[in-house]
Amino acid sequence: MKRILLLTLALSSMLSFSQTDEETIREIYTQSLTNGKSYEWLDYLSNQIGGRLSGSLNAELAVQWGKEELEKLGLDKVWLQPVMVPKWVRGTKEYAYIESSKKQTTNVNICALGGSVATNPLGLKAKVVEVHNFEDLEKLGEAQIKGKIVFYNRPMQADLISTFNAYGGCVNQRYQGAVEAAKYGAVGVIVRSMNLRLDDLPHTGSMTYDDLPVEKRIPSAAISTNDAELLSASLKLDSDLEFYFKQSCTQYKDVLSHNVIGEITGSEFPNEYFVVGGHLDSWDLGDGSHDDGAGIVQSMDVLRLLKESGIQPKRSIRVVLFMNEENGLRGGTKYAEEAKRKGENHVFALESDAGGFTPRGFSFDCSEANFNQVLSWKPLFKPYLIHYFEKGGSGADVSPLKSDSNVLAGLRPDSQRYFDHHHAANDTFDAVNKRELELGAATMTALVYLFDKYGTNPLPEQSQIKN
Amino acid sequence: MKRILLLTLALSSMLSFSQTDEETIREIYTQSLTNGKSYEWLDYLSNQIGGRLSGSLNAELAVQWGKEELEKLGLDKVWLQPVMVPKWVRGTKEYAYIESSKKQTTNVNICALGGSVATNPLGLKAKVVEVHNFEDLEKLGEAQIKGKIVFYNRPMQADLISTFNAYGGCVNQRYQGAVEAAKYGAVGVIVRSMNLRLDDLPHTGSMTYDDLPVEKRIPSAAISTNDAELLSASLKLDSDLEFYFKQSCTQYKDVLSHNVIGEITGSEFPNEYFVVGGHLDSWDLGDGSHDDGAGIVQSMDVLRLLKESGIQPKRSIRVVLFMNEENGLRGGTKYAEEAKRKGENHVFALESDAGGFTPRGFSFDCSEANFNQVLSWKPLFKPYLIHYFEKGGSGADVSPLKSDSNVLAGLRPDSQRYFDHHHAANDTFDAVNKRELELGAATMTALVYLFDKYGTNPLPEQSQIKN
Repeated sequence: MKRILLLTLALSSMLSFSQTDEETIREIYTQSLTNGKSYEWLDYLSNQIGGRLSGSLNAELAVQWGKEELEKLGLDKVWLQPVMVPKWVRGTKEYAYIESSKKQTTNVNICALGGSVATNPLGLKAKVVEVHNFEDLEKLGEAQIKGKIVFYNRPMQADLISTFNAYGGCVNQRYQGAVEAAKYGAVGVIVRSMNLRLDDLPHTGSMTYDDLPVEKRIPSAAISTNDAELLSASLKLDSDLEFYFKQSCTQYKDVLSHNVIGEITGSEFPNEYFVVGGHLDSWDLGDGSHDDGAGIVQSMDVLRLLKESGIQPKRSIRVVLFMNEENGLRGGTKYAEEAKRKGENHVFALESDAGGFTPRGFSFDCSEANFNQVLSWKPLFKPYLIHYFEKGGSGADVSPLKSDSNVLAGLRPDSQRYFDHHHAANDTFDAVNKRELELGAATMTALVYLFDKYGTNPLPEQSQIKN
Repeated sequence: MKRILLLTLALSSMLSFSQTDEETIREIYTQSLTNGKSYEWLDYLSNQIGGRLSGSLNAELAVQWGKEELEKLGLDKVWLQPVMVPKWVRGTKEYAYIESSKKQTTNVNICALGGSVATNPLGLKAKVVEVHNFEDLEKLGEAQIKGKIVFYNRPMQADLISTFNAYGGCVNQRYQGAVEAAKYGAVGVIVRSMNLRLDDLPHTGSMTYDDLPVEKRIPSAAISTNDAELLSASLKLDSDLEFYFKQSCTQYKDVLSHNVIGEITGSEFPNEYFVVGGHLDSWDLGDGSHDDGAGIVQSMDVLRLLKESGIQPKRSIRVVLFMNEENGLRGGTKYAEEAKRKGENHVFALESDAGGFTPRGFSFDCSEANFNQVLSWKPLFKPYLIHYFEKGGSGADVSPLKSDSNVLAGLRPDSQRYFDHHHAANDTFDAVNKRELELGAATMTALVYLFDKYGTNPLPEQSQIKN
């Protein structure tokens, strides 16, 4: 019986060697769309574990789950890589209202920004000054800001096609808003949620105090886009209104957590390492299905799909479930440190951290030669409507692996709906479409397959791919 | 005041003449994403009118609404084009269950197919024979089919990238299933819903009896994919089970309805006509937001966006809200007949009837010369991630306009989620994303702009577009 099995394996291995790239990639997509595991995994991670902020019990449950699931795949190695992570806890639900100068109150939806200090236990109430950017702060000066809450209300720019560009144009309000406002004596910060839609959901996300001493740190919260519009309109009618908010979040000491790593050891060049990964931690408001449960399960499925498609990688392919992308990047940093310390030659790394939507292509951080190599593969992706191959950033977790010679890449899914869910209570499993998720996993696997087959030192002409 | 207005208009017109195509197309997208009307219109059509099957009161409300909204746009002409349409009415909610040979019953979710006859008022109960295609019927023959319900259970093929191709590979079960089964003496037909997901929603859609005499027509219904799986599994355990269903649908005499048409008359070539359109009717189970409310509001917005972007078309651009695509195509047929009768030279027609999802490009039914002309414009669309330019079908409603020399096109949005909603109760407004819808409207407008500017008789070299 065992002999028959081995013979079957040998035959299927021989068959796969005679396959063209077109056929192999077709097989990868068929496997993902008809026999994929990513959606089932995401269901568990999202609905049985849920939101998993670094340092939380759920994050540790996710680490255990990730390790157990990778162990089931029959990889060559699975292990946990220890890493110390920040532990910030939201505490009880935040509470906020607008109080008009006639003492009429209107409740609004806020959430503390990740890393923020709490308000006084009785809450914070102050007048509000609305700004759109840090230059506005400078113009207003301490005279008009001191003792007030600064309300950052610059919306995401709707006419940008990439919503990530719109996010990039806004997120400094959230990340550095408190530090900048504190310079002028502000007592708190309210930031319009990074959301292109008008709705009632506040969107959290990380913020910094830089080296501000503890006693100068001011509480920061995000307000829903609908309530940002309301607050802005209210201020126009009643500039003396006050804003009240209460939040009880706490920053604890760092705690031990882990990256989860699985490896298929390369058959020809075991010392050339590929990484494919996403981040296992998420914010705490939703279940982190798009950010970045999708990237986690797609990355896990890359290794499984390689096996299911009968591909024995020449190079060592690792899946890394990075811990703590959201508020520290400790996992990505630690992984790169350890790789450097051990002298592991990481030639290719691919990250999926832009949602589980229909994949459109990849962004590449690499040399011109490698980029041309990738462009020569573009026709292989056309049947799958994968068309976006551009130079640019890769992803936060793999970026510390950058070297002069390696290739970093990021999956680029359709971005239109991403910020409807990003860091909010509606980043949930029901917002992920099974086929879109599976197409992403297949697209990643196809790129890994090609880089493994042809290596990252392209020939002057990519003639070997014209089969 | 009026003189200033005219001067402003003249200046903006001059400015637009000096714009490059890149700038004009950028302006179109900006208008749609920041000042679009499509989403607001769809909200009304979906939530205030709702499902609008041909011949229904809602369909007539939609006709009136479409005319009134087009009249608000300041077009050169708006009119209704009379057309007789079928009137099929679902009646009371359908009811169905599986009854095991031990008389245990399990309710299942079905809906009558559009055009089906009713069951006996007491319902129809019979044994079931499961098939995957018409060849299976032939193999089984009258001996094993007569007196039974034929259950068509061929699923949509998950590994096809275009879900429309998967639909095309299945829909003959729904459309012709009754005619084929009746040949072998079947008493009813149950068809697995055209849905790639497993869920509880039955998906309706049109079916035919061809020239089958009334007394030989057998009732046909769709069953949800979950219940199709259940029925199939139950049959394997208990081949003597019976299926009961009751539906009270009725086909009435044709009634008068209308296509709604609006026109911007061309400034240079008023006798060259462009059509941009979708279908105003929908099925009755949801509110028809994706099929085809999206196409309706996008098409309406094309004319508005041209105006808002300061574009005065050289050719006559018509928006046509076609009636009765779903179960008759009477509106599309009538429009083409009238165009022919009046000798109107229709040089270009663009249809949007594939959902309000992120646009990927267009499919073209045209000559090689026109297709090359389109390909020369491809770089203009790259910033908007519009990459799909392929020869193929256009759309059902514009296809009767085909001539030897004209260009027909269909918008091609991302298709992954379309059949999750198609013809089912969850084809509703909340399933449409505002930005995705607006990107579609802008993409259509950009193509109309280019064909209007350069005409449909391309120069040997499309040199004029390289600005």
